[in-house]
Amino acid sequence: MSETGRPESLRARAHHLLTREEGGGAGGHALRIGLVLLIVVSVTTAVLKSVPVIGRAHGTLLDIVLLVTSFGFAIEYLLRIWVAPDNPGAAGAAGAARERLHYVFSLPGLVDLVAAIPFALTPHLGLQLDWLDIVPIFKLLRHTAAFQFMVEAVYSERRVLWSAAVLMLVLLVFQSSLVYYFERDAQPDKYGSIPEAMWWGIVTLTTVGYGDVTPVTLWGRVAGGLTAVMGLCMFAIPVGIIASAFIEAVRRREFVDTWNLVAKVPLFRTLDAARIAAVAGVLRARRAERGERLIRKGDQADSMYFIVSGDVEVDQENAAPKGRLSAGDFFGEIALIADRARTATITAQTPCKLLVLHKDDFESFMESHPDLRDAVRVAAQRRLQEISGG
Amino acid sequence: MSETGRPESLRARAHHLLTREEGGGAGGHALRIGLVLLIVVSVTTAVLKSVPVIGRAHGTLLDIVLLVTSFGFAIEYLLRIWVAPDNPGAAGAAGAARERLHYVFSLPGLVDLVAAIPFALTPHLGLQLDWLDIVPIFKLLRHTAAFQFMVEAVYSERRVLWSAAVLMLVLLVFQSSLVYYFERDAQPDKYGSIPEAMWWGIVTLTTVGYGDVTPVTLWGRVAGGLTAVMGLCMFAIPVGIIASAFIEAVRRREFVDTWNLVAKVPLFRTLDAARIAAVAGVLRARRAERGERLIRKGDQADSMYFIVSGDVEVDQENAAPKGRLSAGDFFGEIALIADRARTATITAQTPCKLLVLHKDDFESFMESHPDLRDAVRVAAQRRLQEISGG
Amino acid sequence: MSETGRPESLRARAHHLLTREEGGGAGGHALRIGLVLLIVVSVTTAVLKSVPVIGRAHGTLLDIVLLVTSFGFAIEYLLRIWVAPDNPGAAGAAGAARERLHYVFSLPGLVDLVAAIPFALTPHLGLQLDWLDIVPIFKLLRHTAAFQFMVEAVYSERRVLWSAAVLMLVLLVFQSSLVYYFERDAQPDKYGSIPEAMWWGIVTLTTVGYGDVTPVTLWGRVAGGLTAVMGLCMFAIPVGIIASAFIEAVRRREFVDTWNLVAKVPLFRTLDAARIAAVAGVLRARRAERGERLIRKGDQADSMYFIVSGDVEVDQENAAPKGRLSAGDFFGEIALIADRARTATITAQTPCKLLVLHKDDFESFMESHPDLRDAVRVAAQRRLQEISGG
Amino acid sequence: MSETGRPESLRARAHHLLTREEGGGAGGHALRIGLVLLIVVSVTTAVLKSVPVIGRAHGTLLDIVLLVTSFGFAIEYLLRIWVAPDNPGAAGAAGAARERLHYVFSLPGLVDLVAAIPFALTPHLGLQLDWLDIVPIFKLLRHTAAFQFMVEAVYSERRVLWSAAVLMLVLLVFQSSLVYYFERDAQPDKYGSIPEAMWWGIVTLTTVGYGDVTPVTLWGRVAGGLTAVMGLCMFAIPVGIIASAFIEAVRRREFVDTWNLVAKVPLFRTLDAARIAAVAGVLRARRAERGERLIRKGDQADSMYFIVSGDVEVDQENAAPKGRLSAGDFFGEIALIADRARTATITAQTPCKLLVLHKDDFESFMESHPDLRDAVRVAAQRRLQEISGG
Repeated sequence: MSETGRPESLRARAHHLLTREEGGGAGGHALRIGLVLLIVVSVTTAVLKSVPVIGRAHGTLLDIVLLVTSFGFAIEYLLRIWVAPDNPGAAGAAGAARERLHYVFSLPGLVDLVAAIPFALTPHLGLQLDWLDIVPIFKLLRHTAAFQFMVEAVYSERRVLWSAAVLMLVLLVFQSSLVYYFERDAQPDKYGSIPEAMWWGIVTLTTVGYGDVTPVTLWGRVAGGLTAVMGLCMFAIPVGIIASAFIEAVRRREFVDTWNLVAKVPLFRTLDAARIAAVAGVLRARRAERGERLIRKGDQADSMYFIVSGDVEVDQENAAPKGRLSAGDFFGEIALIADRARTATITAQTPCKLLVLHKDDFESFMESHPDLRDAVRVAAQRRLQEISGG
Repeated sequence: MSETGRPESLRARAHHLLTREEGGGAGGHALRIGLVLLIVVSVTTAVLKSVPVIGRAHGTLLDIVLLVTSFGFAIEYLLRIWVAPDNPGAAGAAGAARERLHYVFSLPGLVDLVAAIPFALTPHLGLQLDWLDIVPIFKLLRHTAAFQFMVEAVYSERRVLWSAAVLMLVLLVFQSSLVYYFERDAQPDKYGSIPEAMWWGIVTLTTVGYGDVTPVTLWGRVAGGLTAVMGLCMFAIPVGIIASAFIEAVRRREFVDTWNLVAKVPLFRTLDAARIAAVAGVLRARRAERGERLIRKGDQADSMYFIVSGDVEVDQENAAPKGRLSAGDFFGEIALIADRARTATITAQTPCKLLVLHKDDFESFMESHPDLRDAVRVAAQRRLQEISGG
Repeated sequence: MSETGRPESLRARAHHLLTREEGGGAGGHALRIGLVLLIVVSVTTAVLKSVPVIGRAHGTLLDIVLLVTSFGFAIEYLLRIWVAPDNPGAAGAAGAARERLHYVFSLPGLVDLVAAIPFALTPHLGLQLDWLDIVPIFKLLRHTAAFQFMVEAVYSERRVLWSAAVLMLVLLVFQSSLVYYFERDAQPDKYGSIPEAMWWGIVTLTTVGYGDVTPVTLWGRVAGGLTAVMGLCMFAIPVGIIASAFIEAVRRREFVDTWNLVAKVPLFRTLDAARIAAVAGVLRARRAERGERLIRKGDQADSMYFIVSGDVEVDQENAAPKGRLSAGDFFGEIALIADRARTATITAQTPCKLLVLHKDDFESFMESHPDLRDAVRVAAQRRLQEISGG
Repeated sequence: MSETGRPESLRARAHHLLTREEGGGAGGHALRIGLVLLIVVSVTTAVLKSVPVIGRAHGTLLDIVLLVTSFGFAIEYLLRIWVAPDNPGAAGAAGAARERLHYVFSLPGLVDLVAAIPFALTPHLGLQLDWLDIVPIFKLLRHTAAFQFMVEAVYSERRVLWSAAVLMLVLLVFQSSLVYYFERDAQPDKYGSIPEAMWWGIVTLTTVGYGDVTPVTLWGRVAGGLTAVMGLCMFAIPVGIIASAFIEAVRRREFVDTWNLVAKVPLFRTLDAARIAAVAGVLRARRAERGERLIRKGDQADSMYFIVSGDVEVDQENAAPKGRLSAGDFFGEIALIADRARTATITAQTPCKLLVLHKDDFESFMESHPDLRDAVRVAAQRRLQEISGG
């Protein structure tokens, strides 16, 4: 479970289970599913309770369910407070307290707190706070990669987005005022003030167009038509920026995953981050169908492979049992440093996504970084001996 | 008809006609048009039958048409069961049965089955299953490349799309709940429960905006306006991902077609798949207008051409009759291996799409793969002798 | 007026004025503005005539205007028939007749014919054909580059678009049928048949969402919400394809314009089309502000310039008068072939768009095409002597 | 405050504060915030005044606020007239007057003038001009980068956009006329004329779809459905063009900022604009987390860094105090010219955006520009001596 081999404390294990999306084995997987289920049950119950027919007939049952899920969230909340000191960067007793306070006053912490309070009971206390029952839905975002990409995308483009928002606000206020001046006499009930006209404005600029408020005068309609066209053109901009920044955030995550794959190869242990990034940059993506032979024993070796997803079978064709490698593993790295024939046949067992590092690419990379050449050569010789000896 | 020259069984021929979009000659073309027509007639009849005026006046006629098309689909269904064993990868009697079962329980198989049952008759049996008459429309998807691209696009981006769907669900539930809490007193008939408010929510987030349910309170409208803006920005993400993955799927198909063009050239027979892909990567696209001269006899040869679409005329300018090449053919490949003048003039007869392989690109490719150089050279010498001798 | 210096016939001049968007001098410009004005007047009149108040008060005046514009269109129509034989590719008397028939039966020809008939008079003849008065608006498309890009874009992607259209038709028919089956009992007046439900379907899939027909049942709304989401995702595809193909068509046109700029340079006269394209490919775009000095007399020359738009002033700083170059001109080409200092100072007089050909890029281009080196060198020497002598 | 060290006049300082978004120190920042606040207060007051309840209750107060803000805008207006002669390019007394007139009659000048007039008082004078109170909102655009990008984007693509607008106008007029002819008998109140039908047309083509006017006849709905689909496809084009041109304008601004960063490095002072652009082109973006060590004292130097945003700490590890560099600064430039070990450890204090110039990239750039090599070497030697001596 521990990467470094040190024995882990119970708290460290709990921290790992609660805060990492991947890893943690079957227990971690079950815990995550359990937490998501708890959220889904809680929110579904709150939604159903709002339906008068159901609320009247099964109100008590639904309240009990909400009470139970609140209790579950309370346990999760306390656990998260407990494990907070295991966040990276915290050290010592002062650090532990600071990390715990940091979590309690963070946005996720507050959501976790609200989710832990059984608001379903508040009507019995004379408080109409049961609408807070819907808040646990935000806990889902912790398990949603898209939300993190979204936050990243908005953050990285925040200056342009803010500026575009001002532009749209100007457009909204001006167009609404214009239509207000044209329509206020014809429809005093619908365009009674600029704020009322702004409801029409936002509905038109976003092209939602409910039709509950529409201009009827000639000039009101001319201004309204222009508003619709300008809305289309203007809103395209933040939409385009967010969409492309989002896709870029996804690609960046993929790069980091690739980087992590490369960093695990013993040969590259001596490289610093920037050089690993450079190696990651010359990798080429490749897909393999089920049953495709990737390496044939005895062939001339000219590239190494990283497995992004899928399984491969390693067959050394002598007495040795067949091996199996899967996502995160790599093979054929000897090709990069020695002119040797392949020592095993490797076949895709499932459809695989692979990254390939060609010998040529690796060599031209090494040539432009001569200071690394020797370090890698030493590491390579040691690895060759291990293999020959093993 | 058979690519390898082996005599084909009747079943193999039927399999080829039924499962491949291209090839199969005039018979295959007629069969595909017939199948599509059968679907169109069947669905149109079911649609017309739903119109009360038409249904009452011509009900019996429409039922007969539906009966006939069901019969046609039944024959198609049985044929598809019969030919299933000819799918690639099936072998032996056990394989044949497995392939047939696989088809019967696949989604296309089930659609084919439902289409083959004359549900138009069920009302006479006291069953209201005639709405299943619309199901044959899904059979059209088998003949629609866009659907396969769509499936590929969604599949390759499924993790991000799933994550984005969760994000949008959170947004939908929360915004709907918010507007429900603001509007439930003002409009108890329209915002009577959260699920009812969610109808408003989905209509707003997708910017459809029917206007049958709209907020009327101040805070309801503020939340509603925010919902519209957030809907625009959030829905842009999956839409952008699907659109770009779709276009990528189309491009990938085009690459495969290019690859197949290259793989057919005798010179490249000895190359493995990865190297053919490398050659395909250095091809450059070129368009030629009708009447454009691509190669002039006696010029210095410096590139070879692949025809993607269109026809060219080969004129050797001596007694030899003029030849004609079309999509899938190639010419000028001798230029890559010998310093010779062009031996014919080649002119585009129709607007052509071509791929060009420049000698320089080919040579630098060969230099970085010295082990292939000799293999290609041998193949080239043989081909040169063929041409000289022929 | 004539590019080759041959005296042009009157018909050839008229052909040039009528069919080319650019060139033709002041007369050509005035003619184009006149034709566009005629269309705008004609269509505006037809639109105004449809307004009852205006139609009753000024009916006769509007009819006269329509009569006059029809007469103008009739003259244009006859002229276009007359000049048709000057289309490129027509030869001889048979060719002339064929070109004229081709124009008469082409779509633009038919629109021109309809525009030439005074349909405004038909009510007086007892025929209600006055709605054809709106047809001349299509004549505007002849003067609209975007339409040609649009046609090109749709044409080049026609296979994918067709396939996507089938996909959307399947979605439309199925979703409409589904909602029809859910809603037909609750709202028999609005969902009375599948075709009626398809009106709802298309309004929802395009996210227009009028709200005149909306589902009210639970399952109708579930299916309706899914339809809205699927509409967003599916319609993104053809929209994305058309938008990107359109932008590509615009870029291609820009490339052709660049190519034409390069082809006019005497140095490059000996190059064939493919090599000019290669030269055009190494050009780099550059903008210059008004007053920016592009070349200073006496500097080392290292690049030549093509003017895409804007004006520059050439100042040789001795007695010679200042010159002026504008869009389509080029300067500094001696730099490519001789190591000489600049012989003039060149300053942008207006904001300019320029294309720059660097000496380095040109030289590496020449190195990879040694057979051209001598041809260009000879041309260059001749040009150098001209300049020294002139 | 002054970049060149010359003492600045009061007017020049005021010009700098009023016209530049960046720089100007704390005073400039406060002034900008003050101006934006004045606009926000003014517009909010005008919007609130339009609400009858508020307008009646607090009318006098709101009028006083508007009077005060108008007074503020009047002072700003006079200041801007005063400082106009400091615009770049103006010279002499004639230039000063010209620049002032130019500002007064420019669009921003007119908006500033209108904002300076207290229209809130006009109703007391019997003039209903109080709707001009909303005009100051346009003053916000001066402080909005997105607006400038938008203007740039529209300007650079104006020809295609204009052409696309004509295309959409043709579509709008034709589709509206078509639906008018189909619907005029069924709904004479809603489709009474083509201009009335065009209201429906624009609402449909933009996919707003209010639903106040919808076709009810069969053919009206067929034409309406086609209009919706065509609207989606056609409007995608200008939207796509504007969005991509906008993003390109943002990127161009980023390039200019990068260029300015590079131009400030003493080593590059001798380079002309085009070469600085070339250097800027080989920079690579890099992000650093808070606390990340960018350079370690004693390491082999292989790249220099530019800080785009964020702060770094310079620790020379001997008695010297720690330094701090921030946005716009650069470090490590000695690496490019001398094989020396790093002389300080540099750590990111905040999340940083950096641009990295690798020694290899710089050297291959120098090799392709041999004439610059010596100039840079001389500058480098001088700088090395400065550092050794300092």
